[in-house]
Amino acid sequence: MTVRDDFLAANLAYAEAFHSGELQVRPARSLAILTCMDSRYTAQGVLGVDLGDAHVIRNAGGRVTDDALRSLVLSAALLGTRQCVLIHHSDCGLLGRSNEELRARVAEVSGVEPAIDFLPFDDLEQSVRDDLQALRTCPLFPPDYETLGFTYDVRTGRLAPVER
Amino acid sequence: MTVRDDFLAANLAYAEAFHSGELQVRPARSLAILTCMDSRYTAQGVLGVDLGDAHVIRNAGGRVTDDALRSLVLSAALLGTRQCVLIHHSDCGLLGRSNEELRARVAEVSGVEPAIDFLPFDDLEQSVRDDLQALRTCPLFPPDYETLGFTYDVRTGRLAPVER
Repeated sequence: MTVRDDFLAANLAYAEAFHSGELQVRPARSLAILTCMDSRYTAQGVLGVDLGDAHVIRNAGGRVTDDALRSLVLSAALLGTRQCVLIHHSDCGLLGRSNEELRARVAEVSGVEPAIDFLPFDDLEQSVRDDLQALRTCPLFPPDYETLGFTYDVRTGRLAPVER
Repeated sequence: MTVRDDFLAANLAYAEAFHSGELQVRPARSLAILTCMDSRYTAQGVLGVDLGDAHVIRNAGGRVTDDALRSLVLSAALLGTRQCVLIHHSDCGLLGRSNEELRARVAEVSGVEPAIDFLPFDDLEQSVRDDLQALRTCPLFPPDYETLGFTYDVRTGRLAPVER
């Protein structure tokens, strides 16, 4: 079996138990969640939302990048979401790193030094506050759009609200 | 109860049943998954991977953007992933749209016309092939980095492989 065959076999088991085929493209709770790509949690799990409830945008750190805004603005305008929950987490690969260190690591494995800003951060709560501010100052959301910020502890499973 | 309190109550129930606190930051299957923000599936679910196995990057469409590359390159160089599975899906909000239409819709709800390229596409398999090509031509991955592409049918739960 190839890796592809392994995934297809696992997907066949998933499809045989599948019962979500009637869900609609518009998120039922008018919710979007922006969080990190970290493997140890799902956005739906930590917030207790069901399939069909929320768009989920994930990138390194859960940062408000141009691409996250592309996704969130589309989610709001085309598919009716009216709230974004932003979650950054403990033990993040970007926490306490520097771009210099990250670029050197990429150069080591690929042979090419990137010019990328990897968006590392030194303070977990402050990174949530900074990114909430970036959401709130984006003029492309509807006037009633709401934002909420949390930190997530990967050791305990607990969310903690971040005040503005 | 505010919306925030609702999420915190749901998260408390999650944390009380939590048993993933020992998972490590490096994905156990050295895997990254790039897919759409769509609410109707989780990346882990459709591929049958467990918490701790795979980084999950999600954006509108599951497109290979600069930000997706920031995340995937970091995932590979810093946290050891060596394979990316790319999944685009049926009934996607970006499928068959135009930037003109999407920008007009944003202007309608926000009052501001965006200059964003929303990365719409007209052919589901071709968008997977295009984005696989974008991954393969990025020089910032290690030499042994592998990519796999699928389409996902939101009505049946089935993946179909996309040949290069």
